[in-house]
Amino acid sequence: MDNNAYDDLVSRLKEIGQLDSTAALLDWDAETYMPKNGLSVRADQLALLARLSHERMTDPAIGDLIGSLDEKCDDEACETNVREIKRLYLRATKIPTRLVERIARVSTVAKESWQKAREKSHFETFKPHLAELIDLRCQVADAIGFQDERYDALLDEFEPGMTTKEVTRLFTALREPLSEFVQAVSESDAAPDASILHRSFPIETQKLWCRQMAGEIGFDFDSGRIDISTHPFCSGNAPTDVRLTTRYLENFFNSAMFGTLHEAGHGLYEQGLPIEHVFTPRGQAVSLGIHESQSRLWENLVGRSRPFWERYYPQCRIAFSEALSDVSLDQFYAAINVVNPSLIRVEADEVTYNLHIILRFEIERDLIGGKLAVGDIPEAWNDKMETLVGVRPDNDANGCLQDIHWSMGGFGYFPTYALGNLYAAQFFARARQDIPELMEQIGRGEFAPLLEWLRMKIHRHGQHYRASELVQRVSGRALSIEPFLDYVSDKFAPLYGIES
Amino acid sequence: MDNNAYDDLVSRLKEIGQLDSTAALLDWDAETYMPKNGLSVRADQLALLARLSHERMTDPAIGDLIGSLDEKCDDEACETNVREIKRLYLRATKIPTRLVERIARVSTVAKESWQKAREKSHFETFKPHLAELIDLRCQVADAIGFQDERYDALLDEFEPGMTTKEVTRLFTALREPLSEFVQAVSESDAAPDASILHRSFPIETQKLWCRQMAGEIGFDFDSGRIDISTHPFCSGNAPTDVRLTTRYLENFFNSAMFGTLHEAGHGLYEQGLPIEHVFTPRGQAVSLGIHESQSRLWENLVGRSRPFWERYYPQCRIAFSEALSDVSLDQFYAAINVVNPSLIRVEADEVTYNLHIILRFEIERDLIGGKLAVGDIPEAWNDKMETLVGVRPDNDANGCLQDIHWSMGGFGYFPTYALGNLYAAQFFARARQDIPELMEQIGRGEFAPLLEWLRMKIHRHGQHYRASELVQRVSGRALSIEPFLDYVSDKFAPLYGIES
Repeated sequence: MDNNAYDDLVSRLKEIGQLDSTAALLDWDAETYMPKNGLSVRADQLALLARLSHERMTDPAIGDLIGSLDEKCDDEACETNVREIKRLYLRATKIPTRLVERIARVSTVAKESWQKAREKSHFETFKPHLAELIDLRCQVADAIGFQDERYDALLDEFEPGMTTKEVTRLFTALREPLSEFVQAVSESDAAPDASILHRSFPIETQKLWCRQMAGEIGFDFDSGRIDISTHPFCSGNAPTDVRLTTRYLENFFNSAMFGTLHEAGHGLYEQGLPIEHVFTPRGQAVSLGIHESQSRLWENLVGRSRPFWERYYPQCRIAFSEALSDVSLDQFYAAINVVNPSLIRVEADEVTYNLHIILRFEIERDLIGGKLAVGDIPEAWNDKMETLVGVRPDNDANGCLQDIHWSMGGFGYFPTYALGNLYAAQFFARARQDIPELMEQIGRGEFAPLLEWLRMKIHRHGQHYRASELVQRVSGRALSIEPFLDYVSDKFAPLYGIES
Repeated sequence: MDNNAYDDLVSRLKEIGQLDSTAALLDWDAETYMPKNGLSVRADQLALLARLSHERMTDPAIGDLIGSLDEKCDDEACETNVREIKRLYLRATKIPTRLVERIARVSTVAKESWQKAREKSHFETFKPHLAELIDLRCQVADAIGFQDERYDALLDEFEPGMTTKEVTRLFTALREPLSEFVQAVSESDAAPDASILHRSFPIETQKLWCRQMAGEIGFDFDSGRIDISTHPFCSGNAPTDVRLTTRYLENFFNSAMFGTLHEAGHGLYEQGLPIEHVFTPRGQAVSLGIHESQSRLWENLVGRSRPFWERYYPQCRIAFSEALSDVSLDQFYAAINVVNPSLIRVEADEVTYNLHIILRFEIERDLIGGKLAVGDIPEAWNDKMETLVGVRPDNDANGCLQDIHWSMGGFGYFPTYALGNLYAAQFFARARQDIPELMEQIGRGEFAPLLEWLRMKIHRHGQHYRASELVQRVSGRALSIEPFLDYVSDKFAPLYGIES
């Protein structure tokens, strides 16, 4: 192995990582603290950073270094880095620098217009920016190339190796048993009272509570923060500086509570990546789907479990005594796990959530495939929502304007949320086999064994294994919908008195 | 004039400005919100940005563009930009890139060690970093070159055109009349009770109050923010995004109140610079001394004036009723203007403040001149403090560790504070001539006329005029100590019953 060449490659990757993490911080600031008139200069700064990063990633010298290192590595870090950089380099060299810069610039402005459009529930405000972003992403897909569908090229950016065909196969298999289960729920006599979660939960108390909960599951505040933004996110600048955001609603307990556990789950993954490989693929997350598996695992499989609340509900009831003093653990547990078709994805229950994703996947695929016009999105959204979830949005703020993703040009991103649910269930089922005491530990507020298991099985490997390989190694089988359906059935059938 | 060459130059300057303002935001974040483990990655990011900026500033293409534009400009923006970029280019090309990068890297770590050293009042913790920074700055001075003293080369960075000789002349002229005045104050029978300012001022109320006061004088919160840091500063990323910080002490009213007015004064200058020339000298502040004139003008000549408090004291007394209900306006006004030799520069009164600067100037000049060893700083500091101000620090936290500046490598910076006081008095004297109603307007809370005068006379010009030229144009004379001494005498002689 050519050590000089490898050192050169790594130092180039670190510089790219420093630029990208700087851009991530500027994005975080734009969502949290930036004064509103700062937008225009911020857009210029981000466009410059995107250009500098892209120039470095597409430098022919990277191609030469890959050429001299490919198949000649002496250790697994080198193998991982060369393999992944080769993939990124080939992808990046096909995309013109001007297109990358244009997308960064348009996205920054589009995010602002999306916020305004959402506030006013006025799709037309966002439409021209969205149309431009879709056009730009189609140009990207065409530049990269694809075998079957143009959408494959975008999907591959977020979930390397995944195809439109495979997503369609999984989602189709998932839809029918999920629908049947939702049907069984709706025929059930159980009527949990979710209105208790809409009582008054003082925001200052929520802030303390959510920070406490994130700390309990292991989020390290010496290497991270929690702030407030319209749309919660986790910005992993480096394992030593992980920024979460959340959104506090006085009259809805779930928003900040489960939003924080969700983002903290992402944050635990980021904090668990090997710092010695920072800014190289060996030190980075596998894919968005795997990332989402970590957030959903902590949010749902841990944070919405009965043992978790056996441990924390007594404290929670004291903290929010005005809202919860007359609410029993059983009532609370039923309320946070209510299955109820609703309009907003981020507030959807575990059973219907994937239906929201299927809707977005179909719209995106048709937009990118040229089968749906931008102006027809609101109606298509509302129709599909009615068909799939059984409810129809009364305005676009509760419909196609609810998510930030498209304003960032993130087409191909949504399917990773449902894949994350599937990965999470499959990982967690295996963790319960490996740690027979797991649910009892959660019931005692002992999260270290689970976190250590995730660190050893997933986090510390960075991109050493590709997603499909990681799933196979961790769980002993390929990705399947079964563990998820088993989990749903095991948890919700008793809650709704459904016979398996 | 070669328009293509000028456009090329401006676009290069904008890119450098985008890099520098990105670094300013990263610095701001490091002082306000960054989790502590983020330091190491942040240092790498800042070192990279400093290198990219320096590479662009020293690109021979800039030299060529200056060559083709020098003496050939058609408008004043071009003249200003070419003149100032020529100065910066000549300076920058003499400094090796590795030295610039090393200083950025060492500074980031040195700031952290300074904070620790200050907390523990332990100079040795900071000493090795300080020694390295001094050595690096001497290398910079030697690389740039100088006529009389090595210190000239550093001074010129912050106050272009100013010399060690001129500073010595002004400071020497200032010292005797100031000392005489302090002597007269100490012989006075007046004994204002400053202890009222050390009562309990709830921090949450201070935050609201300080924000309100900054808004009153004209600070635009759509183009700026106020946050908290150990050492207050103003980070001007662009006129549309100006970040102030302040420090709240429950038991000292002055710290946040006058600290905020001070930083807001800087902020008003930044917000008043012409946005159409952002990131070029035509759109940037003249010098640190002129910058400081704006902060001191709002902090002292406005914010510590009797009319200001005639307007705001009634509200202030209600806001802080527990502390101030038994305090009259006369008592309050005397307290915030107490002359009392003290240890901390940022809390020093207007009369003794410049003596703190003279101390730092002498120590810096001797460090850079090789006449003082780093290990001897604490003793030299304490001895000089006793001689000049009449008090001796009991520990280094209250002595040589009190200021952040040296940890940032900022040698040659301190004299600009005293120059700022001199400029401020000279500008304000002229403003009172031009706006005869000025003090009455301040007494009504009408700051727009003064702000407009500063915008027209100073802010909008950016670097069109050099500091000495600007002073001449605005006030009709060269920089002098007289307006400052007149101001001190006019204000403090009545307070202390001193006959002029």
